[in-house]
Amino acid sequence: MSAPLKIGIAGLGTVGGGTVKLLCGQAALLALRCGREIEIAGVSALDKGEGQDFPRDGLVWYEDAMELAEAPDIDLVVELIGGSEGIAKKLIEASIAGGKHVVTANKALIAHHGADLATKAEAAGVVLAFEAAVAGGIPIVKALREGLAANRFSQVFGILNGTCNYILTEMRQTGRDFGEVLAEAQALGFAEADPSFDVDGVDAAHKLAILTSLAFGVEMDFDAIHMEGIRHVSALDIQFADELGYRIKLLGITRLTDQGIEQRVHPCMVPQGTPISNVEGVFNAVVVEGDFVETTIYEGKGAGAGPTASAVVADIADIARGRDARVFSVPTDKLEPHKHLPMNAHAGYYYVRLMVLDRPGAFADIAGVLRDNKVSMEAILQRGRAPGEAVPVVLTTHETDEAAMSATLDAIAKLNTVVETPRMIRIEAFD
Amino acid sequence: MSAPLKIGIAGLGTVGGGTVKLLCGQAALLALRCGREIEIAGVSALDKGEGQDFPRDGLVWYEDAMELAEAPDIDLVVELIGGSEGIAKKLIEASIAGGKHVVTANKALIAHHGADLATKAEAAGVVLAFEAAVAGGIPIVKALREGLAANRFSQVFGILNGTCNYILTEMRQTGRDFGEVLAEAQALGFAEADPSFDVDGVDAAHKLAILTSLAFGVEMDFDAIHMEGIRHVSALDIQFADELGYRIKLLGITRLTDQGIEQRVHPCMVPQGTPISNVEGVFNAVVVEGDFVETTIYEGKGAGAGPTASAVVADIADIARGRDARVFSVPTDKLEPHKHLPMNAHAGYYYVRLMVLDRPGAFADIAGVLRDNKVSMEAILQRGRAPGEAVPVVLTTHETDEAAMSATLDAIAKLNTVVETPRMIRIEAFD
Repeated sequence: MSAPLKIGIAGLGTVGGGTVKLLCGQAALLALRCGREIEIAGVSALDKGEGQDFPRDGLVWYEDAMELAEAPDIDLVVELIGGSEGIAKKLIEASIAGGKHVVTANKALIAHHGADLATKAEAAGVVLAFEAAVAGGIPIVKALREGLAANRFSQVFGILNGTCNYILTEMRQTGRDFGEVLAEAQALGFAEADPSFDVDGVDAAHKLAILTSLAFGVEMDFDAIHMEGIRHVSALDIQFADELGYRIKLLGITRLTDQGIEQRVHPCMVPQGTPISNVEGVFNAVVVEGDFVETTIYEGKGAGAGPTASAVVADIADIARGRDARVFSVPTDKLEPHKHLPMNAHAGYYYVRLMVLDRPGAFADIAGVLRDNKVSMEAILQRGRAPGEAVPVVLTTHETDEAAMSATLDAIAKLNTVVETPRMIRIEAFD
Repeated sequence: MSAPLKIGIAGLGTVGGGTVKLLCGQAALLALRCGREIEIAGVSALDKGEGQDFPRDGLVWYEDAMELAEAPDIDLVVELIGGSEGIAKKLIEASIAGGKHVVTANKALIAHHGADLATKAEAAGVVLAFEAAVAGGIPIVKALREGLAANRFSQVFGILNGTCNYILTEMRQTGRDFGEVLAEAQALGFAEADPSFDVDGVDAAHKLAILTSLAFGVEMDFDAIHMEGIRHVSALDIQFADELGYRIKLLGITRLTDQGIEQRVHPCMVPQGTPISNVEGVFNAVVVEGDFVETTIYEGKGAGAGPTASAVVADIADIARGRDARVFSVPTDKLEPHKHLPMNAHAGYYYVRLMVLDRPGAFADIAGVLRDNKVSMEAILQRGRAPGEAVPVVLTTHETDEAAMSATLDAIAKLNTVVETPRMIRIEAFD
């Protein structure tokens, strides 16, 4: 058996605590599977992992996480501090410079600085691994980089944020509105005190940026992602979706088109009965389309101590086994420039909900706007009647481009029979 | 860039043809991803790949596949001949002896001789890889061995045979009986002329034996698998399943219990709305339960030229990248003996359908048999009335052990009010 792989762990929150617990609990199994022991040679955390449940016997504590990068007896640094800048980034850079492998769960950092860090890791001959950064316990980075390595990919999409999926599932099942369910999710620990990274789509976009680079062999371009969260999804829209045969999911979608790569995160209506529509609660799912393998789907928990630690330790095990993965499937200097398809060029199907004053001529005004913008309607639904008051009116469209749809929504919002801002949700048929 | 990896391919049927097509079509992409070229240095097939569509320019043909094992310019032999004995086995043994890596899609051979071949490969310092042997294009071998390497597994189960899933899906959607749908599947090429390997559960059992070894680090024991196929599933049972809130799927299930490993392949009723119940047509799906990652699910096409070639080439790419996977997660000499839980010790829920003469006292006789065997009923359904004639009667049970259920079925079959053999299908709640 080879010498032990000695690791240093920085950050002992939920994921760090879970990682220590896993490494201690499965030490013998991991040694058997990896052909060598994995030894925790040092840990560091500002709060000493307060409130986390993991074995503390024999742990060597470092006051300053940066010392892990320089410790001569550490082969690999696990960065679980978080944040796209600051100490996490410094620690990874110093670890690479010190000739140490790096494993991280930090999606924000990889989405913003992944290519730069990968270049440094390749130059230093060390591994930079981030399975835990995308979809928690699901081994989707490995699937894209290795298990499906024989394929050209056309599209990758999925439910990449468990908090949003939990909220949308609860809203549908209980008929409650966003605010109420969010408050409950926060009380249960499924949502952060500041929920904006999750509910505004930022977290899903970080993961999507990474998936794009892995799938298409291109540079990351986080800023090119069209991003909308779920704050505007209402109980009423969820009810209409159900009537129309859809479920509402926050999806991240990256697609290779002839004109460039389309990357978007926004609420979608997906047909009931499709695999992605059945993914509920805190589960994540990723759908990958490759030219030979066709469609494959990966589902599991996208967050939490256990699933995330599983992914962190899978990366450690790979390094222990001496497997040197390319960080982004191809050498970093072979990543192609990211040619971005602007959202205005997107074409698709749309659901639009308006609150319309129930009076003669209201429909004619709306129909006129649609005609003027060459938007063709597939269906129209009106719920209830209340002469002189506002009632919800729902339209669905045939294929239409985003530019025409934006112009239509702007013009409709100006009609004096339409009260409240029109709500639009894109329909994804995946056909 | 390193020297090209030179491969020899034996067998040019659907999968072999697909593999050549993939390797030629994605040659530049694979070289970029692997850091070296993958070169087809020789091919061999009795019928020269007649009827298959792949590029033939520049292929070097070998009359005898066994010569590939000895060719000095070949680094890796891809065995796509099939069959658990004979030439396929000889070729793999000779290739290993000749110091060549081996990639195979041959589930029958790995299920019967995998451990022996793995021992030989380990001794020779070559890789034996078989991603394509389980669930076609889904990278499930890699997920178990690498992506989920940090977990102790409690259970792996899934839809492992696309032909059976296609037939069951068609039966449900059209109300037709098994024989008719099988004939259609044969005409469409979804079922073999001799369908027994598929419809009797043998093919699923081959895959299950491999999954067991990978998940639990034990020796394979194909003969310990309890195996039932789908020939006895009738349109009537599918209808009753629907009424009771289930779908019928042929599952392979391997589970670690305190008393040993339970391995079984048989039709199951699974609750509607669960992920596995929604997997339709030729799709396969595998559900893995690990102690840290919890439940993850993998879905995709389990057969066909493209998906299977995708898996074959993923293995080739791994070898090209110099990644040396343990064949069965742990070294072969560390595989533990397979302690087998006999099917009689299985406990679960059961659906039983009887054809009962509609006359007074018939129910009382059946209820008496259940009481005598301590089988507790959950529900009873009778469809229609036809005094003096046979009508279907359906029972579902609370948890019961297999031995009590067998005795019950034997005793019920002997009642003179019961005509036809009782039909039993196990209910899997996965709770």
